[in-house]
Amino acid sequence: EERIQKDLFSQAELINQISNHILKSGGKRIRPLVLLAASGLTGHPVHYPSAIILASAVEFIHTATLLHDDVIDQAEIRRGQKAAHMLWGNKLSVLVGDYLYTQALSTALTLENHTVNQILAEACRRMIEGETLQLSYHGKLEIAEAEYMWVIQRKTAALLSATCRLGGVISGMDTQEQNSLAKFGHALGIAYQLADDTLDYIADEDLLGKSLGKDLCEGKITLPLLHLLSHCDPREREWVKQVVASSEITEANLQDILKLMQSYSSLDYALSKAKSTIESAKEILVQFPDSVHRQTLFIVADYVVSRDH
Amino acid sequence: EERIQKDLFSQAELINQISNHILKSGGKRIRPLVLLAASGLTGHPVHYPSAIILASAVEFIHTATLLHDDVIDQAEIRRGQKAAHMLWGNKLSVLVGDYLYTQALSTALTLENHTVNQILAEACRRMIEGETLQLSYHGKLEIAEAEYMWVIQRKTAALLSATCRLGGVISGMDTQEQNSLAKFGHALGIAYQLADDTLDYIADEDLLGKSLGKDLCEGKITLPLLHLLSHCDPREREWVKQVVASSEITEANLQDILKLMQSYSSLDYALSKAKSTIESAKEILVQFPDSVHRQTLFIVADYVVSRDH
Repeated sequence: EERIQKDLFSQAELINQISNHILKSGGKRIRPLVLLAASGLTGHPVHYPSAIILASAVEFIHTATLLHDDVIDQAEIRRGQKAAHMLWGNKLSVLVGDYLYTQALSTALTLENHTVNQILAEACRRMIEGETLQLSYHGKLEIAEAEYMWVIQRKTAALLSATCRLGGVISGMDTQEQNSLAKFGHALGIAYQLADDTLDYIADEDLLGKSLGKDLCEGKITLPLLHLLSHCDPREREWVKQVVASSEITEANLQDILKLMQSYSSLDYALSKAKSTIESAKEILVQFPDSVHRQTLFIVADYVVSRDH
Repeated sequence: EERIQKDLFSQAELINQISNHILKSGGKRIRPLVLLAASGLTGHPVHYPSAIILASAVEFIHTATLLHDDVIDQAEIRRGQKAAHMLWGNKLSVLVGDYLYTQALSTALTLENHTVNQILAEACRRMIEGETLQLSYHGKLEIAEAEYMWVIQRKTAALLSATCRLGGVISGMDTQEQNSLAKFGHALGIAYQLADDTLDYIADEDLLGKSLGKDLCEGKITLPLLHLLSHCDPREREWVKQVVASSEITEANLQDILKLMQSYSSLDYALSKAKSTIESAKEILVQFPDSVHRQTLFIVADYVVSRDH
């Protein structure tokens, strides 16, 4: 937290104000936690000042994507939210996101470690590609599950995979150990997104901190909906398509879609996929000796698929 | 141009489409030109593959800022323009801008030169701070000329200064030579922005490629207006303030403000400041031997303050 505060400082007061607002609004700091835990896994001595710089950097990158993700066209808003762009306008959200990206890469540069720089830049590139792909799939009900997986591998798993790998790099692990950590982070990210996309339909609104059915209202096609479409009968499929294509999704329509999802076990399907992914992630960790670090990663892994259930 | 094409490629087809649209829409490639010319100034052998990578990187960064600069709140739009965000929406413009930033820093990373990375990251940071400051000054007529200069030093001069310094770094110039190049680039940027802010009031619309008085309509307070406000009489000042604060600036109002600017020589003031800045920039180059590279930089310098006059 101290490092995050320090890295935030800008000469432009408005940047401090907005980035403070975002970074202090109850983020779970999963990425910094995972990076620091991963770095201790083999018991090699960790150079914590460097590890903490990277922990701050990945949180900055994550926050930048949240800010940029919130910048939407008025036409695409179907439900309002008090996101940063609603408080300060799109342009400032864009600029503060840019600032956070740049600060993340700048502070990482101070380590003068080429591998670190490459991992971070590559993760950013993949995330942005994932977000763009997702946008190009908006409202497209004919995409395959593989295409959905392609998106979440990039938009969510890429940064968590890089985060874990960085933990390994910074504590001098060998390539095989780094690759295992990257695989663990990748699986963690996939499971996280699968759970998130399921929670969007069934979570307790207060606990989730956002509205239910938001993805559906935005035309974001996620796994529960894809499963439903490939299992329901043609008449139901036609009706779902009409609902998704309509400019406004009513509460009654949302409830009916939820009922359909329950009758075809679409939400169970997505959630059990998340859980089996987490199991395979945990198996990867077995090769590392038991430690408080490994226990931390197990707890994070379980948390990711058990939020709000 | 070949390098730009190569660096653009993304697996997300939509990114290729949009970034192609932007990068092929008649940019003058001033930054790549200046970087390559600067690198040849001392006659040291230049490693052109590296110089060209950096030339492409600075153009990407410039293009990213254009894309993000175009993302505006509906409420702030007073004159429509077929900018990228009008064609593809705010969100895609943000993502493609992010992609261009990331690609710029990624390709620069391949040189494994820590100084290069630092210069680029620092330039990005300063640009973003400048843009944010500019936004925080929107509609504020009481800002001093020094605050305006603070903004343009960051939003425009920082990247051109970094561009010139990179030319020196990549051809192994000594620190004194690099500093001179950075100073030249800084002055070039200041003059460029001063001229641009003047052209916004007096240019031929067809040549400029954008609408006249755009800054005024957007509430962007630039030097000609600041000069006018500090030289006109109180009654006129009151009227100008009312016009700027109004939600719609009529063609008649714009013409009246232009007349006032002419009677107080506000446009001449800004333009002559641009020209004297360019003269000081050219003096810096005198320390380098005469060459086709130096001649190129002289031509660019003169061009910057003589566009459309």
